[in-house]
Amino acid sequence: MSDTAVYGKVALIGLGLIASSMFWATRRAGLADHVAGYARSEETRETARRIGLCHEVCDSAEEVVADADLVVLAVPVGAMGAVAQAIGPHLKPGATVTDVGSVKRRVIDDVGPHLPEGVHFVPGHPLAGTEHSGPESGFATLFENRWCLLVPEAGTDPMAVARLRRYWEGMGALVEEMEPDHHDLVLAVTSHTPHLIAYTMVGVADDLRRVTDSEVIKYSAAGFRDFTRIAASDPTMWRDVFLTNKDATLEILGRFTEELFALQRAIRTGNGDALFDYFTRTRAIRRGIIEAGQDTDAPDFGRARVER
Amino acid sequence: MSDTAVYGKVALIGLGLIASSMFWATRRAGLADHVAGYARSEETRETARRIGLCHEVCDSAEEVVADADLVVLAVPVGAMGAVAQAIGPHLKPGATVTDVGSVKRRVIDDVGPHLPEGVHFVPGHPLAGTEHSGPESGFATLFENRWCLLVPEAGTDPMAVARLRRYWEGMGALVEEMEPDHHDLVLAVTSHTPHLIAYTMVGVADDLRRVTDSEVIKYSAAGFRDFTRIAASDPTMWRDVFLTNKDATLEILGRFTEELFALQRAIRTGNGDALFDYFTRTRAIRRGIIEAGQDTDAPDFGRARVER
Repeated sequence: MSDTAVYGKVALIGLGLIASSMFWATRRAGLADHVAGYARSEETRETARRIGLCHEVCDSAEEVVADADLVVLAVPVGAMGAVAQAIGPHLKPGATVTDVGSVKRRVIDDVGPHLPEGVHFVPGHPLAGTEHSGPESGFATLFENRWCLLVPEAGTDPMAVARLRRYWEGMGALVEEMEPDHHDLVLAVTSHTPHLIAYTMVGVADDLRRVTDSEVIKYSAAGFRDFTRIAASDPTMWRDVFLTNKDATLEILGRFTEELFALQRAIRTGNGDALFDYFTRTRAIRRGIIEAGQDTDAPDFGRARVER
Repeated sequence: MSDTAVYGKVALIGLGLIASSMFWATRRAGLADHVAGYARSEETRETARRIGLCHEVCDSAEEVVADADLVVLAVPVGAMGAVAQAIGPHLKPGATVTDVGSVKRRVIDDVGPHLPEGVHFVPGHPLAGTEHSGPESGFATLFENRWCLLVPEAGTDPMAVARLRRYWEGMGALVEEMEPDHHDLVLAVTSHTPHLIAYTMVGVADDLRRVTDSEVIKYSAAGFRDFTRIAASDPTMWRDVFLTNKDATLEILGRFTEELFALQRAIRTGNGDALFDYFTRTRAIRRGIIEAGQDTDAPDFGRARVER
């Protein structure tokens, strides 16, 4: 292995935004000697070959994992189980399998049983993304200063976990470990429910006939636009997130509806003090986010620029 | 008047984000010979004097409007009526009064009766802002390529409307005229309801005890962060928006809740097709916004940079 390499061979299964960004980040930092990729769709594989994504693009999942030291499942959460079943018998003894799914309990339940003895399973979740998807959407800096949560089960080989941590850190991520059910609840609050709400608001606007589509779009900069960016994310990925993190999402949605009804009542009854107090409280959270370095005060919102 | 000036003297009442940006934009393009400002708070007036905001800062609303060709009411919607009452008797014959409030029907009802014969009233609403407020938050480019909606009532002097249009265009805005009630409905969809929802989601996160504050903030980049930016906007302004655009906001909220319950049911019953179809539809709206030039595809989200 080269000096900078953390793994000899990395296999990426699914070549969307996350996997393609992982390739560019891996190549930039020299974190693997060889990266092989596989995607179910012929079209995606052809695109990957055309743009030079991965050192090698394979035509089957069995082939891509052959001799791989790290296998990354980067497919929608609902597809993880089937992929694990297909690759299980072909994994190299001592290899590590990880994933990048937004839900962790379901992935552990679906993937774990298909992995043979002697293979290390270290589920993961990089908290990074854009509203774009597909093999051409990736870029090397996607993970820089973003969190990557690893959720190994008790008893997992600490060396395998430490190695995967080094790999993510090499791609610029900040790594933390977390318990799977807690992960799913935290993400229901910080990601899954906000996405569902954004999707809903955009759907309402689309439905409203008196306010024409063109007006909604034309005057979107007034707040709505921020929702549409979120609501443009990959539909398959998000369908699977909600289906597989059902309980936590429904719980947070219940809380949300309760609060929304309280604010709705304040509006209906003209209770300006209640509204003012509520809006003042939420402002403090925003300040906390800026202080925590998860955003900047700058008007470009601190979003990273694309570079490969 | 200088060659570039649209008005001899402009009076700004309320020196927050919008009025301070108007001053910098006016000065940059030489759109007025003299800009006088007034804010109710002594502290704001002192800040304005310190940072050179306005050619002159006055200590009363009566004083600031003396001899003004254009008077801009840039206070929260709920305060417009009282300001109009105070300045009414001191307005110069032939002057134009406008405002920058987010709700238009209420402003027309509250301000109109206090303005004397011979003064032109042309309500307006620039669709521009950031999550920051106060006299130091303004910058000259805030209105560039942003819409400014003018909602003059039938019978308003077309010359006065055309002149105000030239003034906003000079500050970089795209100007359209709209009927007040329609304005309030469109904004309920594109701005007011999205803001209420963002406030609610941030409030839910704040309330949730099992997911600690620090985790919500730490992992906010996963979607939640976009809500906190919206939810950091000025509490007084937003309280007044909801109290004064009550009917349209409650109507859109009702639609929102209906849709949210349908999606919630799809999650609960595991109806993946319904979720996928919904998320695919909302994606198209996002594409429309990019095509309409109200946002860019760039990862910095097309936000303008601050410059004075």
